[in-house]
Amino acid sequence: MSKTKPFPPTLKQLLLKGNEQIHPGVSVDCVIFGFHENVLKILLLEVKQANIWSLPGGFVLKNEEVDDAAYRVLALRTGLDNIFLQQFHAFGNPNRSDVTFHQLKFQEYGIKIPKDNWLTQRFVTVGYYALIDFSAAIIKADSYDSTYAWVDVQKIGTLMMDHNFIVEKALETLRTQLAYLPIGKNLLPKKFTMPEIQKLYETILNKKLDRRNFQRKMLGFGIFNKLNETRKGGAHKAPFLYTFNDKKYQKALKDGLYGSW
Amino acid sequence: MSKTKPFPPTLKQLLLKGNEQIHPGVSVDCVIFGFHENVLKILLLEVKQANIWSLPGGFVLKNEEVDDAAYRVLALRTGLDNIFLQQFHAFGNPNRSDVTFHQLKFQEYGIKIPKDNWLTQRFVTVGYYALIDFSAAIIKADSYDSTYAWVDVQKIGTLMMDHNFIVEKALETLRTQLAYLPIGKNLLPKKFTMPEIQKLYETILNKKLDRRNFQRKMLGFGIFNKLNETRKGGAHKAPFLYTFNDKKYQKALKDGLYGSW
Repeated sequence: MSKTKPFPPTLKQLLLKGNEQIHPGVSVDCVIFGFHENVLKILLLEVKQANIWSLPGGFVLKNEEVDDAAYRVLALRTGLDNIFLQQFHAFGNPNRSDVTFHQLKFQEYGIKIPKDNWLTQRFVTVGYYALIDFSAAIIKADSYDSTYAWVDVQKIGTLMMDHNFIVEKALETLRTQLAYLPIGKNLLPKKFTMPEIQKLYETILNKKLDRRNFQRKMLGFGIFNKLNETRKGGAHKAPFLYTFNDKKYQKALKDGLYGSW
Repeated sequence: MSKTKPFPPTLKQLLLKGNEQIHPGVSVDCVIFGFHENVLKILLLEVKQANIWSLPGGFVLKNEEVDDAAYRVLALRTGLDNIFLQQFHAFGNPNRSDVTFHQLKFQEYGIKIPKDNWLTQRFVTVGYYALIDFSAAIIKADSYDSTYAWVDVQKIGTLMMDHNFIVEKALETLRTQLAYLPIGKNLLPKKFTMPEIQKLYETILNKKLDRRNFQRKMLGFGIFNKLNETRKGGAHKAPFLYTFNDKKYQKALKDGLYGSW
């Protein structure tokens, strides 16, 4: 009796017939950000056979808009639709597709990918970042039975292929877009404190900020409602809770929430 | 004797053997901006057989970085290298590749593109914008013997496929990046007047700006050297010429040249 696992029909079909339905040269990869316990995290999947972590991604169907492929991957992974999703960069290094990773996945089933198989060519991947409500997401493992983890963006190890570079580029994009897209609102819980939004800004900007300056500047935008409630539980004086004033926030983003942080 | 033109070997090779060297699903399209006589223009090519205008673009070779394909197209068209070039968006609508345009090009040579030819599938195109020194560019027509023109961005007619959408998206990108990328410097001549830079900002932002406010804000950035020279020839009082102070400009872009224009 063979020691290899039975080959799942879906995987076999993917290898042999995938090229009938899948676009031959484009994939999507998603950097899914969530803010949890004052830490900015991204969702990573483990490619078990390769003992390495990767971004959630997928192929693009022949009749599918590339943006829709990203929405599909996100809905599949997180159970969420109506997600804040932004395309940010296409990654097109000719050596980026390392067939070794596919090979490792298939070899557990005793399958060797043929030399000229469609899977062996370079896929140009379109990178998307998503900002999700951490508490609402229900993460699912994929068809390769991967496990997943939310990992602190400041503690990511070596990822598959060019995925570290994709994460860097996503963070760089967040930094520049912080001033004109609703990044704060999409990552923070509905009610948040000034120390929490400061921590989020510090992580994205990758530097410590002065508490007083930050609060003065941030409150100066006039985009928050101060609640008559505080966040209990910390060692310090309980800080006040805020919500975004949506109308003022949208208006302020048009001009830009600029400040030399 | 056939009325059709002799089929150029390069075109025939492209059709029959192109898939051996060309990436099967990704192309590049370039929105090349130049600022000339106070008008922001883009470079367009005429697809003569289709009587329609398009952006300069091209395929990606199998062993070529996608960004390098954009540089190659630009160098080929403009004779310039060392160009300010930014990837800005990937366009992946499943219906974007209209084989009719290819068909029109080939039919002049009496060739019908076979139904399953590699050229007939959807190409996801990666959009790049380039800012060039208008006076230095030497434009070349392409292998389809297209003519070219510099067209005022505010007076572009209907372009091929989704190219109008690509131009819109490029302009939208310029608007948001005006604050932190050296867009002014790359489009303006070495010496320029305040009315000239104001005109450039007005075109990119697509609105009239108040002269006094604009100058106060712009000069407030402290990024210019005022020259002891004026631009002669206008009906009004000759305006002073300025150059960028590169060091101060680079520093200011890091914080952002923000203003609620």
